Amino acid sequence: MTKTVDILVINGPNLNMLGTREPSIYGYETLADIEAQCRAKAADQNLTIDWFTSNAEHELVSRIQQAVGKTGWIVINAAGLTHTSVILRDALSLFGANVIEVHLSNIHARESFRHRSLISPIAKGIVAGFGPASYYMAIDAISHMNAET
Amino acid sequence: MTKTVDILVINGPNLNMLGTREPSIYGYETLADIEAQCRAKAADQNLTIDWFTSNAEHELVSRIQQAVGKTGWIVINAAGLTHTSVILRDALSLFGANVIEVHLSNIHARESFRHRSLISPIAKGIVAGFGPASYYMAIDAISHMNAET
Amino acid sequence: MTKTVDILVINGPNLNMLGTREPSIYGYETLADIEAQCRAKAADQNLTIDWFTSNAEHELVSRIQQAVGKTGWIVINAAGLTHTSVILRDALSLFGANVIEVHLSNIHARESFRHRSLISPIAKGIVAGFGPASYYMAIDAISHMNAET
Amino acid sequence: MTKTVDILVINGPNLNMLGTREPSIYGYETLADIEAQCRAKAADQNLTIDWFTSNAEHELVSRIQQAVGKTGWIVINAAGLTHTSVILRDALSLFGANVIEVHLSNIHARESFRHRSLISPIAKGIVAGFGPASYYMAIDAISHMNAET
Amino acid sequence: MTKTVDILVINGPNLNMLGTREPSIYGYETLADIEAQCRAKAADQNLTIDWFTSNAEHELVSRIQQAVGKTGWIVINAAGLTHTSVILRDALSLFGANVIEVHLSNIHARESFRHRSLISPIAKGIVAGFGPASYYMAIDAISHMNAET
Amino acid sequence: MTKTVDILVINGPNLNMLGTREPSIYGYETLADIEAQCRAKAADQNLTIDWFTSNAEHELVSRIQQAVGKTGWIVINAAGLTHTSVILRDALSLFGANVIEVHLSNIHARESFRHRSLISPIAKGIVAGFGPASYYMAIDAISHMNAET
Amino acid sequence: MTKTVDILVINGPNLNMLGTREPSIYGYETLADIEAQCRAKAADQNLTIDWFTSNAEHELVSRIQQAVGKTGWIVINAAGLTHTSVILRDALSLFGANVIEVHLSNIHARESFRHRSLISPIAKGIVAGFGPASYYMAIDAISHMNAET
Amino acid sequence: MTKTVDILVINGPNLNMLGTREPSIYGYETLADIEAQCRAKAADQNLTIDWFTSNAEHELVSRIQQAVGKTGWIVINAAGLTHTSVILRDALSLFGANVIEVHLSNIHARESFRHRSLISPIAKGIVAGFGPASYYMAIDAISHMNAET
Amino acid sequence: MTKTVDILVINGPNLNMLGTREPSIYGYETLADIEAQCRAKAADQNLTIDWFTSNAEHELVSRIQQAVGKTGWIVINAAGLTHTSVILRDALSLFGANVIEVHLSNIHARESFRHRSLISPIAKGIVAGFGPASYYMAIDAISHMNAET
Amino acid sequence: MTKTVDILVINGPNLNMLGTREPSIYGYETLADIEAQCRAKAADQNLTIDWFTSNAEHELVSRIQQAVGKTGWIVINAAGLTHTSVILRDALSLFGANVIEVHLSNIHARESFRHRSLISPIAKGIVAGFGPASYYMAIDAISHMNAET
Amino acid sequence: MTKTVDILVINGPNLNMLGTREPSIYGYETLADIEAQCRAKAADQNLTIDWFTSNAEHELVSRIQQAVGKTGWIVINAAGLTHTSVILRDALSLFGANVIEVHLSNIHARESFRHRSLISPIAKGIVAGFGPASYYMAIDAISHMNAET
Amino acid sequence: MTKTVDILVINGPNLNMLGTREPSIYGYETLADIEAQCRAKAADQNLTIDWFTSNAEHELVSRIQQAVGKTGWIVINAAGLTHTSVILRDALSLFGANVIEVHLSNIHARESFRHRSLISPIAKGIVAGFGPASYYMAIDAISHMNAET
Repeated sequence: MTKTVDILVINGPNLNMLGTREPSIYGYETLADIEAQCRAKAADQNLTIDWFTSNAEHELVSRIQQAVGKTGWIVINAAGLTHTSVILRDALSLFGANVIEVHLSNIHARESFRHRSLISPIAKGIVAGFGPASYYMAIDAISHMNAET
Repeated sequence: MTKTVDILVINGPNLNMLGTREPSIYGYETLADIEAQCRAKAADQNLTIDWFTSNAEHELVSRIQQAVGKTGWIVINAAGLTHTSVILRDALSLFGANVIEVHLSNIHARESFRHRSLISPIAKGIVAGFGPASYYMAIDAISHMNAET
Repeated sequence: MTKTVDILVINGPNLNMLGTREPSIYGYETLADIEAQCRAKAADQNLTIDWFTSNAEHELVSRIQQAVGKTGWIVINAAGLTHTSVILRDALSLFGANVIEVHLSNIHARESFRHRSLISPIAKGIVAGFGPASYYMAIDAISHMNAET
Repeated sequence: MTKTVDILVINGPNLNMLGTREPSIYGYETLADIEAQCRAKAADQNLTIDWFTSNAEHELVSRIQQAVGKTGWIVINAAGLTHTSVILRDALSLFGANVIEVHLSNIHARESFRHRSLISPIAKGIVAGFGPASYYMAIDAISHMNAET
Repeated sequence: MTKTVDILVINGPNLNMLGTREPSIYGYETLADIEAQCRAKAADQNLTIDWFTSNAEHELVSRIQQAVGKTGWIVINAAGLTHTSVILRDALSLFGANVIEVHLSNIHARESFRHRSLISPIAKGIVAGFGPASYYMAIDAISHMNAET
Repeated sequence: MTKTVDILVINGPNLNMLGTREPSIYGYETLADIEAQCRAKAADQNLTIDWFTSNAEHELVSRIQQAVGKTGWIVINAAGLTHTSVILRDALSLFGANVIEVHLSNIHARESFRHRSLISPIAKGIVAGFGPASYYMAIDAISHMNAET
Repeated sequence: MTKTVDILVINGPNLNMLGTREPSIYGYETLADIEAQCRAKAADQNLTIDWFTSNAEHELVSRIQQAVGKTGWIVINAAGLTHTSVILRDALSLFGANVIEVHLSNIHARESFRHRSLISPIAKGIVAGFGPASYYMAIDAISHMNAET
Repeated sequence: MTKTVDILVINGPNLNMLGTREPSIYGYETLADIEAQCRAKAADQNLTIDWFTSNAEHELVSRIQQAVGKTGWIVINAAGLTHTSVILRDALSLFGANVIEVHLSNIHARESFRHRSLISPIAKGIVAGFGPASYYMAIDAISHMNAET
Repeated sequence: MTKTVDILVINGPNLNMLGTREPSIYGYETLADIEAQCRAKAADQNLTIDWFTSNAEHELVSRIQQAVGKTGWIVINAAGLTHTSVILRDALSLFGANVIEVHLSNIHARESFRHRSLISPIAKGIVAGFGPASYYMAIDAISHMNAET
Repeated sequence: MTKTVDILVINGPNLNMLGTREPSIYGYETLADIEAQCRAKAADQNLTIDWFTSNAEHELVSRIQQAVGKTGWIVINAAGLTHTSVILRDALSLFGANVIEVHLSNIHARESFRHRSLISPIAKGIVAGFGPASYYMAIDAISHMNAET
Repeated sequence: MTKTVDILVINGPNLNMLGTREPSIYGYETLADIEAQCRAKAADQNLTIDWFTSNAEHELVSRIQQAVGKTGWIVINAAGLTHTSVILRDALSLFGANVIEVHLSNIHARESFRHRSLISPIAKGIVAGFGPASYYMAIDAISHMNAET
Repeated sequence: MTKTVDILVINGPNLNMLGTREPSIYGYETLADIEAQCRAKAADQNLTIDWFTSNAEHELVSRIQQAVGKTGWIVINAAGLTHTSVILRDALSLFGANVIEVHLSNIHARESFRHRSLISPIAKGIVAGFGPASYYMAIDAISHMNAET
């Protein structure tokens, strides 16, 4: 099946608040700032991009289901659901292997319950701790990997 | 103190064998191929780069100690030492916060003793699972972060 | 209170994708196929049946709440929520003892985080591993048990 | 920023069923009864109060996000989500320190998976086991603490 | 090799006492009652059935070994051996994939040492908690699955 | 037996030092200040109150024993004994169900060995984290609960 | 049902070797010596006694089953099966509450896998570490308890 | 050194309340009743006996220290201290090997924190679950063992 | 005591099926083939050999007991009982130190419950993973060790 | 506040028995011998010293409380309370940072429950295993540290 | 690729001290004695042998890397590195499947941290506990296995 | 054998960096400063001293091996290897009982992976947390202990 979009970026709960609180952990950029930069970067590399943000686990699951067979890659920052959501993992498994997990902060330097990711074992790769750059690096990685195949 | 080198890339045990065995996990590129690409990428971005590879934990430790105060960033793929070496972590702590941990494979999709990294909690960020691209993404990240400051 | 429906079948997240992906685990039948067979089987035994499917944990919870006092039995395949959802368990506890837990696959032959079910300790019985037949066996069981009382 | 409401009371999943089932654990009062008493008590103390109840984790998260910077205190009975929801905790962290966790029942006298609360470590205080009085005590506590500052 | 019997039902230790003690857990039916119903049900479906009961782990193992290559399916209620017997599991592995694990009671609602089954990971499917109906459901399941192939 | 006192407040080891050290955790009020306020509050509600403080586990145990059958409620802040004293728990069990556990600080936000309370499972309710107000809230709760019966 | 025997003493695997090896742990008396003393002691107290020894778990189980309803008390030294046999525990549960667990050695002073007994939680009482006297004390205890009822 | 007393019976915290509360666990006999019977039994066997009861761990420790070198045997029911007191164990170790641990109830059938005894590994033997008879059996055991040497 | 046999080889449950199933794990040789080779090898070295195979744990225990004092060495492949049988370990302890544990497969490369052996801590040595050669190596080892003494 | 004493040495339970029992662990010196040497050593260095020994946890706690603000350093050998006493730790925390933990024996070479010290995490330093010299070394250390400031 | 050596024997840290200390664990033979016997045994069987001993983990790793593709089998006694070295395991994985793990002592009868081997899961087979004979048995095993292919 | 040196001080990885980084943990003194003071202190007490520092685990092991039989005492600060190196422990065991473990910082107040020392169980004594004084105290201790023998 021909893919109709190259990249779907998925943002989980509370990321909509980015740039408004706890800058020592998450910085001052808003999610809209990051989206703009991602779109610019993708455009530079002739990649189409979809952007989806929700506080609702089921909306994230449903959006991933819609991407099955139609989208080349999923870049996902599942936020707090990273550590608890089996159904998000199951939806990503249905989608397939082209999944990149991103985190703004270094989850391994935070509380111990954030050290386990249910998504990591089924992801292609993981980028964590670079702030908004984690997203840009993921897009670059897709560009690299598309070039290789 | 003025830094005399921008980036030191550290490669741990068995990475010298890259490209010769187990391509299903590590791919066909040799470490020399990766070094060449890293140097090219760094040159493009006007970053100087040092490259160090050893099977010996103490040589890795000593090389990191030499970099203290003289090098801007360390990019480290500690390979199997990632999960066991407290002294490597201690050397990196002495070096400071500008450490990026990279892995060719997705360590969270392998044996459970590879899921814990002693380096992650003291690293700035982590890139894992993208094959050689993990290294290139780390160099890009440094470029991003240098640009920000 | 007179029950207005005999059986409510509840299907959790990602089950709507059944038959479209990962047939080695879940087979080729769609959820609509299974529903049709369940309805036929229930009709044969003069049992009325309701069918509810959602990716949203809270919709599953609310649907169960509506069934309290009005429905004879709940047959539930909570999918990935089986292992994580305390609130689904709480809703089923409110409903009462007539709950049957079903799974298409044998959850004990999969990843270790799927071995614990929060629902099992409060269910009447469990059927797992028979593919769509797990549902049909549950309906038969209700027929048996209704006959006994 | 001036707070526009003094207290937001958040009620999690299945609490809407209060007073209808399992009175040995939860008593005979409905959530509406409790709300009425809370409103009366708050009025006595010249405190404004908002009341929000939902079975949906994401609606609770979104409601808490809306309260950021506008509400003085959150009193939360997260019910079954207490033990599993990282995203609720993250939303409460964004809100800040003025969070009181309440429970109708003594969660430490129930199943072991109810003994750990993800909310407790970031809450100001905890009140559990007093039935509806847990809520009234929390409102009194806010009154005490407002008086002190 | 042509199978000479369709189903072998294996009953483990203490099941011979069924119907004589602890009816609150196991009910009033004797094992002979259950055997009679299983035989009737199998006859209805043109399935031949063997029935074997023993308190001795080694007799169960030897009986399973004799069934290798000669019997279509094994339905096993290993009773207390479910949780401790590696050799029973090994014998069932030798037999192959067509194994159904049944339990009269819901083992997940009993003592924690009964929550782990050594048999589940190598069984085709599991039926637990329906009293004698657990057996009848297993026979029905075989009928379903034979029909499919 | 007619109760001769309504409330016995028990204060465990080191609480006698309150207000003299570590105000960031325990505040500036002394135990005498808290006692005075508790007595005032109890008087307002026509409740008689006894107050007992000791560094000695056995004196606490003996004081609880004396209260058996003569005192309506025990409010206990067992301090560091909360996490280690089986004999205090046993004495409280002898006393009966009318036990309220209070803590000045939020024990769940401190060291992990303070997260388990041996008293919680046998207490009626728990109030923690409100500083001296934890005590006042407990007295209010008793007033509420006496009113209900 | 009238009991036909007062006490059944059950001896598990390897106890037949008593007095022949490892006297530092088990002493020099043979099992026959102990039997003789038990019979003498029982006779003194007008108690009838049965004695059963086997290396076979299933023979122990079957012997216990035969005692159901016909024997007043079981005194059991399950030896190494103490720590592993769920089916022995299940048989003893069928028998009922009048079970005394005895051990020659102090199992808590030996290897850690001997510290857990599957029988203890369902036994009336436990006597361990007194060598052969453990048996005699159990018979005395029965005498005491019979006297009380 | 000649022993001046044959047996010292030590009773830990809350045992002074025996016979007054929770008869379903501890029965109706008081500690004075048990003492009287122990003294009678000891007298029958020409054994001198000391009796010591305290709620205070340090008084128990000091009493044991006084017995060093002067007392033949210690029979100890450490009650709730059984599971927590290293210093009681240390005092008993100083006393030597002639220690018998007794419990009225079967500690293995109660809460899991009561399953571990710090005293068991250094005791000669253990008697648990026989109510007051546990004490009498211990005295009999001493009589047996004295007879043997 | 003069030994009447040099070596007793003990084969546990399911080993009688060797060579008939699962050759990828256990190979194509039957147990009779292995016995023949062991007998030939022993004859070459003037060692007498006994061979015993059973699915019954108690028969294995009894056979080991008979060997006490009469046999020089025991070579044991306890199969699935390796991981669960305390009584087999106890019988081997009675036999003494000259025990060699053998396994056809590498138990450390299989399921985690096969990683712990109850026999290893009391065995002289262990040989695992060489298929039938594990047995021959054990016989050679005895030959070596007999030569040394 | 001017300190009125330089050093308070605290000795926990059973240390009063030193030199009388178990010399293989604790040696032949009595606590009075050690006190004399400590006093001599302190005098040599112009340090005043207080000495306190008790079997009672609460007396130790109270003595530490009295030292708050008046004593320069506490040297504590908490003996068996080291591993269990939260209240001793809390009292030492109130005292402040100048705490030295000493042990006569090497607690890490003894039973595993002695490996964890509740005091270590809040102590300045730890000296263990040198017999009475552990005390003298602590006094020397104070001398060193006083000299530095 | 033609192998240039049949067997490489690798000896890890502290094995160079063999025969000089702790004979109760390791015996009186030196490593040179063992080497001589291994060479003799290999010569008898027309096998060429290389011998390498080092205290340095990285030298062991590098030596294994050199053997890749050139050596038929590796026999390794990794000594203390057995339990800690992921990089040794990784080097052996690169080498391939023909790895035999040997130990002089029975590691399962020693401290618990010696019970886990990181090498075992990737080794062909394991020989432990036979002293120097463990090496000779490994060489024999290679001879057997070469004969089979 | 006559000892040729009284004390060998071993310093592990990263200690060469002392005084250059992280003074809040390790202070401002360099390792050379500490060496000078140790040598002066040893000279005062007529003790000869050797000093060895390396980042290489194998050099530490080899240096310890050379000291066997020639050196009276080893004082070792194994730094990060304390928690991971079995081979260092093994080398120290070969050396014998006269080993003193020192740490500059209080390892029990740092990350949990630093709480376990593989060296402690085989050391004579432990000194931790006194900064450079930890070394001086160890030398004093040797002086004390030499005086005693």
